[in-house]
Amino acid sequence: MAKNGKLSIAIDMDHVLAHIEKQMVDWYADKHGVRIEMEKLNGVPEGEAFPDKSKVREFLYMPGFFRTAPVIEGAVETVKQLCEDFEVYIVSAAMEFPQSLIEKKEWLDEHFPFISWKNIVLCGDKSIIDTDFMIDDHMKNLNFCKGRGMLFTAGHNTKIDYDVRVNNWKEAYDYLYANCEI
Amino acid sequence: MAKNGKLSIAIDMDHVLAHIEKQMVDWYADKHGVRIEMEKLNGVPEGEAFPDKSKVREFLYMPGFFRTAPVIEGAVETVKQLCEDFEVYIVSAAMEFPQSLIEKKEWLDEHFPFISWKNIVLCGDKSIIDTDFMIDDHMKNLNFCKGRGMLFTAGHNTKIDYDVRVNNWKEAYDYLYANCEI
Repeated sequence: MAKNGKLSIAIDMDHVLAHIEKQMVDWYADKHGVRIEMEKLNGVPEGEAFPDKSKVREFLYMPGFFRTAPVIEGAVETVKQLCEDFEVYIVSAAMEFPQSLIEKKEWLDEHFPFISWKNIVLCGDKSIIDTDFMIDDHMKNLNFCKGRGMLFTAGHNTKIDYDVRVNNWKEAYDYLYANCEI
Repeated sequence: MAKNGKLSIAIDMDHVLAHIEKQMVDWYADKHGVRIEMEKLNGVPEGEAFPDKSKVREFLYMPGFFRTAPVIEGAVETVKQLCEDFEVYIVSAAMEFPQSLIEKKEWLDEHFPFISWKNIVLCGDKSIIDTDFMIDDHMKNLNFCKGRGMLFTAGHNTKIDYDVRVNNWKEAYDYLYANCEI
């Protein structure tokens, strides 16, 4: 429960708000001349579907990679709606890539201007984050979340079993309103 | 309790690790030609002791202000020691000043290289941080902390009553080891 009495949600950025898979495919095609089909990313660990995985990891340190990522379908409208009834925090493990810190803040300001700076958390390990819900694409984060975890489908996690999986923002929205009392 | 079984501590940066008062006094003297005595900062809200408070607030947006702040006495040695027995997180409300994000990460890398990126949190509101202890100079953060708050003395908070006050890193260290079972 947030301090204002609303239920709280921690929402991840990469693969949940930002379409990092599409960005990786586009950047790989642009910089290395090979376009991977999006479907090839399903069921394999992040980066494994690309001919040279190390090149994909290099993107994470390159200026502009996070700043220019496309937004996942439905994210803006749904998160804006959720802000009416929940206390929404954007919680991103950005600290491994310091150049991404300002890019992620600017990206949020551009696409999610209704999110206050007070509700943005750029961190490393998320195990100290205490919210009623956590929407994330990584089990390493959901395994230690203190509230109800929701696994947001991304190619790399399609083979993982988890209690609550949401495949898109419509499903996330429906789950949240079906599992809270507002 | 951290996921590794250690008790966890959230440690603030400004006025707790970084000597922001000294930095403000030095910058004001350098840029506006008036040196305020450090003692004048005691018992008044942040910035109020300076002839023009708005000038002090401008510093918070200026490149280099956070990056070049001096370290508070005893912080490095004590935090290093605490890392042996506690899970230490650095939790700073940096999001209001986006240019400070990279500066704060670089400052920590320089002065506290033993702190992993996994244990750094740059946020806005700290009420979703869940640690066993929180060391902070602001009641707005301690009022909502889920564990044991510890008010770290800074000029602006000297007139505030709070259960646990520590005046320096020696006192913080002594309190932590006296109030945990390791």
